[in-house]
Amino acid sequence: MTTLSIDQPIPIHPIAVVILAAGKGTRMKSDLHKVLHPIAGRPMLLHLVASAAALHPAKTVVVTGAGREQVEAAVAPLGIATALQAEQLGTGHAVAQARAALSGFEGDVLILYGDVPLVTATTMQRMIDRLHGDDTPAVVVLGFRPADPGAYGRVIADAAGRMDRIVEYKDASEAERAVTLCNSGLMAVRSTDLFALLDRLGNDNAAGEYYLTDIVELAAAAGRSSAVIETGADEVAGVNSRGELAGVERAWQATRRAQAMADGVTLIAPDTVWFAHDTQLGRDVVIEPNVVFGPGARIEDGATIHAFSHIEGASVGRGANVGPFARLRPGADLRADAKVGNFVEIKKAIIGEGAKVSHLTYIGDADIGAGANIGAGTITCNYDGYFKYRTVVGEGAFIGSNSALVAPVTIGAGAIVAAGSVVTQDVEADALALVRPPQIARLGWAARFREKMLARKATK
Amino acid sequence: MTTLSIDQPIPIHPIAVVILAAGKGTRMKSDLHKVLHPIAGRPMLLHLVASAAALHPAKTVVVTGAGREQVEAAVAPLGIATALQAEQLGTGHAVAQARAALSGFEGDVLILYGDVPLVTATTMQRMIDRLHGDDTPAVVVLGFRPADPGAYGRVIADAAGRMDRIVEYKDASEAERAVTLCNSGLMAVRSTDLFALLDRLGNDNAAGEYYLTDIVELAAAAGRSSAVIETGADEVAGVNSRGELAGVERAWQATRRAQAMADGVTLIAPDTVWFAHDTQLGRDVVIEPNVVFGPGARIEDGATIHAFSHIEGASVGRGANVGPFARLRPGADLRADAKVGNFVEIKKAIIGEGAKVSHLTYIGDADIGAGANIGAGTITCNYDGYFKYRTVVGEGAFIGSNSALVAPVTIGAGAIVAAGSVVTQDVEADALALVRPPQIARLGWAARFREKMLARKATK
Amino acid sequence: MTTLSIDQPIPIHPIAVVILAAGKGTRMKSDLHKVLHPIAGRPMLLHLVASAAALHPAKTVVVTGAGREQVEAAVAPLGIATALQAEQLGTGHAVAQARAALSGFEGDVLILYGDVPLVTATTMQRMIDRLHGDDTPAVVVLGFRPADPGAYGRVIADAAGRMDRIVEYKDASEAERAVTLCNSGLMAVRSTDLFALLDRLGNDNAAGEYYLTDIVELAAAAGRSSAVIETGADEVAGVNSRGELAGVERAWQATRRAQAMADGVTLIAPDTVWFAHDTQLGRDVVIEPNVVFGPGARIEDGATIHAFSHIEGASVGRGANVGPFARLRPGADLRADAKVGNFVEIKKAIIGEGAKVSHLTYIGDADIGAGANIGAGTITCNYDGYFKYRTVVGEGAFIGSNSALVAPVTIGAGAIVAAGSVVTQDVEADALALVRPPQIARLGWAARFREKMLARKATK
Repeated sequence: MTTLSIDQPIPIHPIAVVILAAGKGTRMKSDLHKVLHPIAGRPMLLHLVASAAALHPAKTVVVTGAGREQVEAAVAPLGIATALQAEQLGTGHAVAQARAALSGFEGDVLILYGDVPLVTATTMQRMIDRLHGDDTPAVVVLGFRPADPGAYGRVIADAAGRMDRIVEYKDASEAERAVTLCNSGLMAVRSTDLFALLDRLGNDNAAGEYYLTDIVELAAAAGRSSAVIETGADEVAGVNSRGELAGVERAWQATRRAQAMADGVTLIAPDTVWFAHDTQLGRDVVIEPNVVFGPGARIEDGATIHAFSHIEGASVGRGANVGPFARLRPGADLRADAKVGNFVEIKKAIIGEGAKVSHLTYIGDADIGAGANIGAGTITCNYDGYFKYRTVVGEGAFIGSNSALVAPVTIGAGAIVAAGSVVTQDVEADALALVRPPQIARLGWAARFREKMLARKATK
Repeated sequence: MTTLSIDQPIPIHPIAVVILAAGKGTRMKSDLHKVLHPIAGRPMLLHLVASAAALHPAKTVVVTGAGREQVEAAVAPLGIATALQAEQLGTGHAVAQARAALSGFEGDVLILYGDVPLVTATTMQRMIDRLHGDDTPAVVVLGFRPADPGAYGRVIADAAGRMDRIVEYKDASEAERAVTLCNSGLMAVRSTDLFALLDRLGNDNAAGEYYLTDIVELAAAAGRSSAVIETGADEVAGVNSRGELAGVERAWQATRRAQAMADGVTLIAPDTVWFAHDTQLGRDVVIEPNVVFGPGARIEDGATIHAFSHIEGASVGRGANVGPFARLRPGADLRADAKVGNFVEIKKAIIGEGAKVSHLTYIGDADIGAGANIGAGTITCNYDGYFKYRTVVGEGAFIGSNSALVAPVTIGAGAIVAAGSVVTQDVEADALALVRPPQIARLGWAARFREKMLARKATK
Repeated sequence: MTTLSIDQPIPIHPIAVVILAAGKGTRMKSDLHKVLHPIAGRPMLLHLVASAAALHPAKTVVVTGAGREQVEAAVAPLGIATALQAEQLGTGHAVAQARAALSGFEGDVLILYGDVPLVTATTMQRMIDRLHGDDTPAVVVLGFRPADPGAYGRVIADAAGRMDRIVEYKDASEAERAVTLCNSGLMAVRSTDLFALLDRLGNDNAAGEYYLTDIVELAAAAGRSSAVIETGADEVAGVNSRGELAGVERAWQATRRAQAMADGVTLIAPDTVWFAHDTQLGRDVVIEPNVVFGPGARIEDGATIHAFSHIEGASVGRGANVGPFARLRPGADLRADAKVGNFVEIKKAIIGEGAKVSHLTYIGDADIGAGANIGAGTITCNYDGYFKYRTVVGEGAFIGSNSALVAPVTIGAGAIVAAGSVVTQDVEADALALVRPPQIARLGWAARFREKMLARKATK
């Protein structure tokens, strides 16, 4: 199975991660905090938390501000600390707010941004490793080369990454503006250095803000070197608008699709398949056009997902067939060679090995035995408006079309339910269950009805 | 709510709009007239009519020719005049046919092309405004700079847009061909100037046609200046084939998607969402991949449209949830926090606040009360082959799965319909309705049937 | 109707086709042989076989190796010979294995690659024609100019295509590397020349392999000329990974979509429509976004395929309407003006002229008469777990919603089946069939149930 996590060994130096998430995100025009907008079904902030987790940080602190309640609620279940930046006085000021939460911590501090979500664990580790390079820089900056450097701050460094300074675009000379290496804002700094430098930070600038970037200059003034390492522009893409959010999603999906294909998955139309952050895919899985995965899907070797399927929180066994037009909801568990066909919804239900649920069916809160055949239009009536109940269908049973199975109910192995039955009582193994009132014929009735209706239409 | 209309103030000078729509569109290979092929669910011609309407024209004339019946039928309901160009003798000849329809009109004439559908009201207004510039040009031409100027006529003008002349590519010198500003064909001309110039138009050219473009030269000969204003190439893209039709649709959709995101709508996969010309979207609406809007959809703040949904002529209230795999047809009216789930079709029906229609259901011609729960597989039987009838479900009612509600019928508030019932009579509030014949069991029947069938299979 | 086949006249010179398919395709990471991975629903290898068939070859030989059983099983039904290359000793060695299968054949041999699937019949014919040019070359090579020539072998030839030699990238001089014409590997050679040249082929190279390319040099040594003809890079794109497979699929689809539009089909969103290799489309067919065709679909003039439809092995008559959310399976045969609506599945069934199957229905193994109306939620119960049976619905019959038609069963012309009926006996023409047990009301029951359940919830 394919997973995308990269796990680093337990670090020698303790690591703390500070994630800045105080910005309002006004351009998102949203009531949802910017860093909680999802990429691949997971909030941006939690992508960073998950990537950073591979470095086994001793401490993670999220700096909050506007919309802090939403952010706190999102990270609280993960045992992550938050620190409030009550006023928006710049990135340096924001990092300084993490001081209390990091009291007692001594080690390397990695500074990330909640709206720069795709930074990988590998890059984070490279930043930490560089901090422990032979020249022991005070600050390690993550640089990148955008297609259009525009107004980004330029990183002035030699070929080995020894950094002279970061120069803001507006202050840059013609020669400096010609530099294509730009500052992403991400940094690694030892905790002792970090807070010492932040203490010296001033806000003597037009905006009256404390800029984190300025610690590079302060370090230099104190006789300490700084360094830059470089990564691809896609990895440090920031999200300030829904358009940029869609762009980052697009980049994430493109990477994931390429990975899936490299791992032996056929994507007939890669651009039409949307993965979630944790989708697991086996070898020789075939995915037809237009398939959407929500979180928690696992597809085993040789399964086929036909077009127009939606799969979330579900497991699809070896050689199973899903769709077209199938919806697997959380708790759907298709065993090997099971088949779920068109206009079928499965929720919290096991579909046994080789069992078939081919058309227009809802199976919820159920165990369907191996080899059972569920006819078209079957509905498990699992809910009475207050509680949910379970349906059990035995191995090799045959449920006739358009039947309703009123839970709790058990259909024995090998039993048959006649088409159109509403089954409210258990059915014995190998028995036939039948709910079939007599069919009545009224000869000529339809002809008379037709005449009457046509006459009525004529008078309208 | 987001709308794309731009409304201009009532004009000081009366405006008339002439839209040329006489061309056959042979390359479309269609029985449908070219200008009636839709973009974003609306015929191209009506896009122009709608954009021009923002200028409050005193008169609009569509010049027809081949397929005139189709075009006339399309614009007649809008009270728009048509003028017949019986022979295809060139664009100048085409405009001249509008003379009778414009008799008595004095003011500015805007000349548009039915197969150049994306010109905006803003650009149209800019053309009119330029006509009233200090230099009072006789003709205002709309120019553009295509990626490849190819064989377009070149606009020879100074930087201020004072136009010397338009030169056809075949007649252009090397230096003139190097000019990248091209003639879109769209013009604004005062009515008095227009018809005076058209009277002087000759057809002394290879094709023997009267070219509208030549009025620029005639104006110059009469000592009158002309002017050009410039717009983007996408806006004046013309449609002569289905491939170009798809290209214009793509451009329109890209603009609309960007607008939606800028307005605070999340599009997880923008390229997979297809809007109609009049789709209205609230703030914090989330639209998952693969959603198609037909005309007349309105989605309110905070609603979520899940993947694989199709929405036309429907209203979705605040916080409501639609899909995946939902179809809302005209007259579907989902109130706040309502839920319409997978494989559900709603037509001409109110789904009350917080009501749930979660799976495999058809609700047509119905009023579903607030908080009601419609079980899986429920069908409103609204049609008897001749007339349609209404179903009413009261607040908080519970319709058991696989039920058929035979309209006209009313289910009272708080009532329960047992699963699998065919309801033909009204149900009192808080009552249980039950259509449940006894379940019959035939022990061992399925085992005997299996033996018999397997034996029969063996002999085949 | 549109088809893409190009049929050449019966050739003057007999033609044999040799397709190399011995490569493992390790990078595909698949249990399925590389050349059997499908493009547009047809295995790559069979695309080549079909294109070559237009040249009426006297003999086709597929050279197999790893995974030979799969390849043999795929071509055996077509009466195509295979030849085993037991060891992977290079392309020259592979072609030599076809000698026995071609014994007795004298004529032109076309050498193709199973993983270069998009080569057209036209290009194949051009290669053969060039072989019979006035200069009677011994070898004709197919060249192409990739965007990045990279490490491809360069074709050194004059402007008229008279080839000096092919030079491997590693052996090429600076000047030779500047040549942009590259060797695709495809060749045409007379059988007598081919085997004479192959006999002289050595393996004195780093890999110890017999390279087919070397026959050009051997021919030159024997005083014979060679020639190159050129084609587009897309046509000779090879498939070595699932990413490249997706790329070739994308290219094929783009070509097919453009062809469909040129032929008079509207594709509102071309990039979202996926054709199969044999999809047939009439004029003025409209295809909305997100439609997937499996093999064997035929859509006649003026039919509309709405969004989210999946069509395979089905015929859609003039003016018919399909979808949105419709699935037509093999044997679905919709006659003129028929309608199949949302969440409907049709399999092995005729839907008569003007008949309507509008919602949530499964029609399998059935004949639906002209003008019949099949209500929402209707299911044909065509399967008893062992055999399938047929349902016949007469002209103008009306099947009420949520009915089950238990096959074998016949509903007469003009008959009505009341909503919710399970029909097990034939219904006479113009009769009403009714299966309708009495509806029972229990007043106040729902209110009491609600109290009880709320009390139980409160104690949980």
